[in-house]
Amino acid sequence: MKIGIVGGTGDIGEGMALRLSPVFDVIVGSREKEKAESTCRLGTETLKNRGKSCSLTGVSNQEAVDGADIVVLAIPFKHLAGTLEGLHGFENKIVISPVNPMEKRDHFTFVPPVEGSAALMVKRLLPPTARICSAFNTIAANKWKALDEDLTYSVPVCGDDAEAKRQVMDIVNRISRLQAFDAGPLAASSMVEALTPLLLNIARYNKMRDVGIQFR
Amino acid sequence: MKIGIVGGTGDIGEGMALRLSPVFDVIVGSREKEKAESTCRLGTETLKNRGKSCSLTGVSNQEAVDGADIVVLAIPFKHLAGTLEGLHGFENKIVISPVNPMEKRDHFTFVPPVEGSAALMVKRLLPPTARICSAFNTIAANKWKALDEDLTYSVPVCGDDAEAKRQVMDIVNRISRLQAFDAGPLAASSMVEALTPLLLNIARYNKMRDVGIQFR
Repeated sequence: MKIGIVGGTGDIGEGMALRLSPVFDVIVGSREKEKAESTCRLGTETLKNRGKSCSLTGVSNQEAVDGADIVVLAIPFKHLAGTLEGLHGFENKIVISPVNPMEKRDHFTFVPPVEGSAALMVKRLLPPTARICSAFNTIAANKWKALDEDLTYSVPVCGDDAEAKRQVMDIVNRISRLQAFDAGPLAASSMVEALTPLLLNIARYNKMRDVGIQFR
Repeated sequence: MKIGIVGGTGDIGEGMALRLSPVFDVIVGSREKEKAESTCRLGTETLKNRGKSCSLTGVSNQEAVDGADIVVLAIPFKHLAGTLEGLHGFENKIVISPVNPMEKRDHFTFVPPVEGSAALMVKRLLPPTARICSAFNTIAANKWKALDEDLTYSVPVCGDDAEAKRQVMDIVNRISRLQAFDAGPLAASSMVEALTPLLLNIARYNKMRDVGIQFR
């Protein structure tokens, strides 16, 4: 199974590639293919130094969509619509949105688009056969990259396609000690996306770093 | 310090009274004073059978406001505005809102009032000197009542009055193994209130009971 990371040279995407590529075939996309290639060289080196082999290939964002069975949209919300409008070929693919529409004002606030959530905006922008799930919303970039640390977090997963959701939950459960939870249909994603600004506020007001969440 | 629970004979209020009254003086309010009195008799008995003494008095909702330093609004969202409009005397009191505006449609959804959150609606309805905090939003009634179980959850607390928030966090930290986290100003309450329908969805779709949350 090939996982393509669109925006894979950003902070989150790069961290995800490091965690996913020892387990799955990962193709890292970027607007600049050279950047993706260099990210993958460095990532492969980093993992090799820890005695881990990986499957990590740098490509363009479009090639990351074309070559993957499952596409992760590791894009900041402000670039989400623009990036998706420049890409095609999402038909029948599983598409994971970890995107959180939020703004930092006095504090971090969930500021959803008119659709109600980033996930529902993705649904509007992609072809109807794209099988969209939200997942990985609350895992901070620093946590993805801290390869010496286990990821002991809960990951809520939303989606309308039961089989796609099952596959995404399986992927989640194979990464470090992440634990996937079915959080309902795609329309329930707003409550998942609102978690991230809440966690950022909690980190800020309690002088903590990279707060995560566990359901229990 | 006296804690008054408005709506203290409901499921949540009753459970809170059982957990709070061994530590603080608790006055339980109800629309029907007799109901509050009987709830308190039963509660005192329940605690006594476990070798715990408590301070638990049943009164009317108005007396619960008048007699308390800190008032907890243990009211379902649909009755919140109506109940507050029938009460007075909130000036300078610390008021805790654990209220979550949500609806069960296909799944549980956060449905905030025009103010943006139940906490901000409380702020609009109460006098400007009321010191409003949101807290305890995500602790399920069954958990409050399961006296044999430790409450090992995180509790986000929002508020604009730093001293009031500090006092509320101290109360949280004295109940079982709850741990309070400063989640920012009152305007950040919407993200806390949205957690509860998310947790209800997770319970439902993963066949769990009374899911809680830990930040870490």
